[in-house]
Amino acid sequence: MKKQKQLEVAFLGGVGEIGKNMTAIRYADDIIIVDCGSTFPSMDDTPGIDLIIPDFSFIKENIDNVKGIFITHGHEDHIGGVPYLLSECGNIPIYGSSLTLALIKHKLAEKKIDIPKLNAVKGGDVKKAGAFSVEFVNVTHSISGAFALSINYPGGALFHTGDYKIDYTPVDGESIDLARIAEIGNSGVTLMLGESTNIEKKGTTISEREVGVTLERIIETNPDKRIIIATFASNVNRVQQIINICQRVGRRVAFDGRSMVKISEIAKSLKMLSWQENTVLDIEDIKDVEPNKLCIISTGSQGEPMSALTRMANGEDKEVVIGDNDVVVISSQPIPGNEKAVYTLINNLYRCGAKVLYGSLEQLHVSGHACQDELKLMMSLVRPKYFIPVHGEFRHLKKHEELAMSMGIAKENIKLVDIGNRIAINKKSIQFIDSVEAGEVYVDGDSNVDSLVLKDRKQLSRDGVVIALLNINVENRQLTSVDILTRGIVLEEEFSEFIKSMIADIFQSSAYKNESERGGLKNGIRKKVARLILNKLKQRPMILPLLIEQIKEEKSQESDSEEI
Amino acid sequence: MKKQKQLEVAFLGGVGEIGKNMTAIRYADDIIIVDCGSTFPSMDDTPGIDLIIPDFSFIKENIDNVKGIFITHGHEDHIGGVPYLLSECGNIPIYGSSLTLALIKHKLAEKKIDIPKLNAVKGGDVKKAGAFSVEFVNVTHSISGAFALSINYPGGALFHTGDYKIDYTPVDGESIDLARIAEIGNSGVTLMLGESTNIEKKGTTISEREVGVTLERIIETNPDKRIIIATFASNVNRVQQIINICQRVGRRVAFDGRSMVKISEIAKSLKMLSWQENTVLDIEDIKDVEPNKLCIISTGSQGEPMSALTRMANGEDKEVVIGDNDVVVISSQPIPGNEKAVYTLINNLYRCGAKVLYGSLEQLHVSGHACQDELKLMMSLVRPKYFIPVHGEFRHLKKHEELAMSMGIAKENIKLVDIGNRIAINKKSIQFIDSVEAGEVYVDGDSNVDSLVLKDRKQLSRDGVVIALLNINVENRQLTSVDILTRGIVLEEEFSEFIKSMIADIFQSSAYKNESERGGLKNGIRKKVARLILNKLKQRPMILPLLIEQIKEEKSQESDSEEI
Repeated sequence: MKKQKQLEVAFLGGVGEIGKNMTAIRYADDIIIVDCGSTFPSMDDTPGIDLIIPDFSFIKENIDNVKGIFITHGHEDHIGGVPYLLSECGNIPIYGSSLTLALIKHKLAEKKIDIPKLNAVKGGDVKKAGAFSVEFVNVTHSISGAFALSINYPGGALFHTGDYKIDYTPVDGESIDLARIAEIGNSGVTLMLGESTNIEKKGTTISEREVGVTLERIIETNPDKRIIIATFASNVNRVQQIINICQRVGRRVAFDGRSMVKISEIAKSLKMLSWQENTVLDIEDIKDVEPNKLCIISTGSQGEPMSALTRMANGEDKEVVIGDNDVVVISSQPIPGNEKAVYTLINNLYRCGAKVLYGSLEQLHVSGHACQDELKLMMSLVRPKYFIPVHGEFRHLKKHEELAMSMGIAKENIKLVDIGNRIAINKKSIQFIDSVEAGEVYVDGDSNVDSLVLKDRKQLSRDGVVIALLNINVENRQLTSVDILTRGIVLEEEFSEFIKSMIADIFQSSAYKNESERGGLKNGIRKKVARLILNKLKQRPMILPLLIEQIKEEKSQESDSEEI
Repeated sequence: MKKQKQLEVAFLGGVGEIGKNMTAIRYADDIIIVDCGSTFPSMDDTPGIDLIIPDFSFIKENIDNVKGIFITHGHEDHIGGVPYLLSECGNIPIYGSSLTLALIKHKLAEKKIDIPKLNAVKGGDVKKAGAFSVEFVNVTHSISGAFALSINYPGGALFHTGDYKIDYTPVDGESIDLARIAEIGNSGVTLMLGESTNIEKKGTTISEREVGVTLERIIETNPDKRIIIATFASNVNRVQQIINICQRVGRRVAFDGRSMVKISEIAKSLKMLSWQENTVLDIEDIKDVEPNKLCIISTGSQGEPMSALTRMANGEDKEVVIGDNDVVVISSQPIPGNEKAVYTLINNLYRCGAKVLYGSLEQLHVSGHACQDELKLMMSLVRPKYFIPVHGEFRHLKKHEELAMSMGIAKENIKLVDIGNRIAINKKSIQFIDSVEAGEVYVDGDSNVDSLVLKDRKQLSRDGVVIALLNINVENRQLTSVDILTRGIVLEEEFSEFIKSMIADIFQSSAYKNESERGGLKNGIRKKVARLILNKLKQRPMILPLLIEQIKEEKSQESDSEEI
């Protein structure tokens, strides 16, 4: 990377996708990182993967120049990569709100990673980091302690909106600091990075308080029932609203699900969540309370397989047995890709006899992201010279570009970027410089796997595997026998025998004499067997020919009929 | 099955799910089948599967009593299982509209299955089948030629709504026959089976004509652009509306995608689709027409991997290269589970430079299924004594039950059924009799696979496979060597060597002397290796130990390092 005196922004994640946000910002010798998130995998594209994180190569190469990580807020797509970054790159100071830092600390402790210097900041705080001075600006979002970042560097200013909505009546009273954002805009912003999640939605998002009104009505109109509300554990304001309602109507509250228990504990210790003595009880103690005097707040609103609500719906929860005395409220919307899991969850809750409230007809959930009119308001306050839409799939970025152009920003002053793109900005222009090494890293258990491994898994998942064992007498170069073993595919015996005879034919006609011809022989077998199975069954399993070279004519004991 | 003189209804599919509808209705010795559909598989639950069809065991057992298959309409979830049923059970007469039968005929021809007796019917026709007399009642839906069935049997009447919406202004003029349905209701209906797809939606569905209005506006306001509209090929009325608009504004029309080409041809031959000479041209000839005088109607609105629109978006289509002169309209809503595929498609179309119109903000699509107010209207006309909600997941059936109860049907007169349930109805009661053999059959290529095979595939897809080859000298009962081969998982060399040494230890301490101990040895290896890998990598691959028994100490040539 040249050490030119210009602003350079490298996009390591969060563009062309919703997930694993990470941006590296450089001026001369100094680099700061904004966010370091992770993405949840999907069974379709990334089978067996636990987590997707950004490729940190660019950071590793430039680690000596990195002055700090600035985290906008504590959602997984903004903090989920931090433990992996620190374990690869060592100690980097981290800046964020107290809630954000507490969530990161918990993550690091779970993975037994040394805690770096954590710098808790409040709205209005300014931190120096090399050539940069970073101001934290309060915004409203679906988690408390969320910031936009106003980043000054020699000769310019960058404004990163973070994730936000414009909530004029936030539950915790910490409103988005529109006045300060207007001041920042007035003093001149060179480049704005603006989030794009809800660009497809007209109008404005609804205030979090509206969800409180709905939940209050549900709780009040079901005085004889036990209430179970599933929501995102990190939405501390929603949890607080539920607690407030319960205290007023005389219900006790129990938290269920690992992250709900943990985050409510963290938020309580930070005084972001509060309740009267005797309101909250452990989930193990709910049998001591009349069901109609109880409200359970649980995880699992996305139908996650191991979550509390999924366990309840499957009749596998030790503490909570769902029945027809329960009202279950799903206080969230399915994230795209989770629809089937959420609907399966709802079906199962109904089968248990519960009344289930969900969906968009009732105001059971509001988004944390700005809709079109809010995005326009932000644009009109910040009035940047250059604009790069972020936090969106390509269609979101494209539509956000259209919105910016409709508000007077010239097309040549807007860039649509992909992961790895590096952009240079000076007073005269914005341009692509190059692409840095970047992309997806797949975390599977405690190791990373590459895309070739995923390709194998996809083939295995589609049509299984056929293992052909060729027992070869190395003395006379003759094939003693062939065994076939399958998993994930069934070959009828007759067809299996036919394949064996074809393999024997290939062996006979092959140039197989010694080790050097093994590759050719195996390739021939792979191709022929693949074709036979495709023609007969229209399936494409992985074919693995194994050559077992033996002295005597002793047959291996393996055979396709044996249970192994 | 006892030959009691009562109505018996066996649900073979389409309850507790949306898909593969199939119901067997019996009176005394006579059975009729209503619909025989298929379901599309999902990568999550059914990897590598092409199609899911009902288990036909109950039909096979009673084939001599089956008098006919009555098909409500030509969608895949109502006809997709027909070729498999016929190839398993032989010739059964089929009744349906001319479009339904043409679609079935095409399916059978493709699979080279003998065409059975096909009985084309129109609304108002009545057909006798054993003890039953079946009247076909016109309904409106998102495919033409859709019927409800009014089924009379000795002493009673069953009304099956089929799939329907109440469209007072259908494009083809064939309105839902509410007057006849009212008459049927007035003459007394014992049991109604009512579809439940849109029970979660308030109000009424919008007329198909509204989509025409939107598409007309889009085409008229883009006179300089090429227009590409993706929709369901079977929605002949929508295709006709597009053709009408194009003829009026002077655009020619090309069909793209196998099913679009095929179904438009079928519909034309049935005079359900019409166009002026010189309107339609082959997709191969579109280069002869100015782009702004062309409209391509294509498949792929659900982001299906091999469809025309997906090929275009990926730059893989021979005839259509998408660019910034194209307006692409997605005239459908993602079916739950398809969201990610559809959004990927849209992102890719944007990347090609096209303007893309999609989503619910514009009236680009309307549902073919009745919403709550239409369901209430149907209930109020038919006024059945007994009611069974069908065509829905459990939550839909449950909510439809609530709707029926709100309209005065007693809870004990409503049954919520699962696949396989058999219900008996007489004038005095409705009750569960038993469950018949029923469920899902997974079609993979040209064969069926069972759930154990799917279990293997899911394990393979999550974490791959580890093959351990034990080369054993059978003379001295010693282990010569161990080789390890993996697919879909990577083991570092050091760890791999450690696993080999552990396998050697297990072999030493095992009771392995002859063939009878092989099972125990393999089980021991499987458990130990699984545990080692879980502890080290937090992964759970399939472990396949293979014992290669040899006379001499000749090492097999396989090793983990070799590329095979």
